[in-house]
Amino acid sequence: MKETNEFYMERAIALAAEGMNADAGRPFGAVVVKDDEIIAEAYNQVTTMNDPTAHAEIVAMRKACEKLNNFELRDCIIYTSCEPCPMCLGAIYWSQAKMVYYGCSRKDAAAYNFDDQFIYDELDRDMKDRNIQFVQLAQKKAVKVFEAWGQRNS
Amino acid sequence: MKETNEFYMERAIALAAEGMNADAGRPFGAVVVKDDEIIAEAYNQVTTMNDPTAHAEIVAMRKACEKLNNFELRDCIIYTSCEPCPMCLGAIYWSQAKMVYYGCSRKDAAAYNFDDQFIYDELDRDMKDRNIQFVQLAQKKAVKVFEAWGQRNS
Repeated sequence: MKETNEFYMERAIALAAEGMNADAGRPFGAVVVKDDEIIAEAYNQVTTMNDPTAHAEIVAMRKACEKLNNFELRDCIIYTSCEPCPMCLGAIYWSQAKMVYYGCSRKDAAAYNFDDQFIYDELDRDMKDRNIQFVQLAQKKAVKVFEAWGQRNS
Repeated sequence: MKETNEFYMERAIALAAEGMNADAGRPFGAVVVKDDEIIAEAYNQVTTMNDPTAHAEIVAMRKACEKLNNFELRDCIIYTSCEPCPMCLGAIYWSQAKMVYYGCSRKDAAAYNFDDQFIYDELDRDMKDRNIQFVQLAQKKAVKVFEAWGQRNS
């Protein structure tokens, strides 16, 4: 049965509350929908899974990919209780999901100390100006692997 | 025994080649080092694990967190065969790793069709101008979970 976008979003929001009540991590939830069916759902589990990447969106996307037996989520729609952080945005782009509905904005999140603006700021900075130092090393040796890949796939 | 930065980077590059030869995914490798010891290593496994987030850096970081039994990687150094994509950068910031050494630049990667510039571009765009549509929905209901979190933790 086709449900409304509000229905799927309410499930994502309910998952955020569930995760909070289960002390699973921070209060964020997400669902992945394909062909009007929820194929995966998750809440943030960073602190309980000891995994800094276990944001709700990423856990839900991993489950959805497992279910579809595919590393892409084309034609899938992601409903998330909050605007995705840059890590999750990157994952969404790699997954080629079709569309994202989000509840809270990043500003709402920041008001409750869930602030990812520092990551957006860092991404826009030259490497030399970043808080985490990035240093290039052994570029020539590293490029050789790409060359081998190119030959292999030519 | 303390090894040089070049030693750890060569291991990351060797992992990129190993992954390619094992047909595990794309040719990227990474290691996580703490107190002069490699605590985790990985190559890209996106296509074989059916996980769009299984970039070398993220797989290695998840393994390192599991080993340390912690969701943060403070005092850890990440050596990666290629400049991290925005998703991995986000994960690195959330992990609070200390520093990153990388081999190839994103331009080297783009020359071999491993191009993540489109993600940087999208992150900088207003939501309405993005290729993947982002739509806000049910903000008031979503914010209520943050309010409950705030009360719980006040």
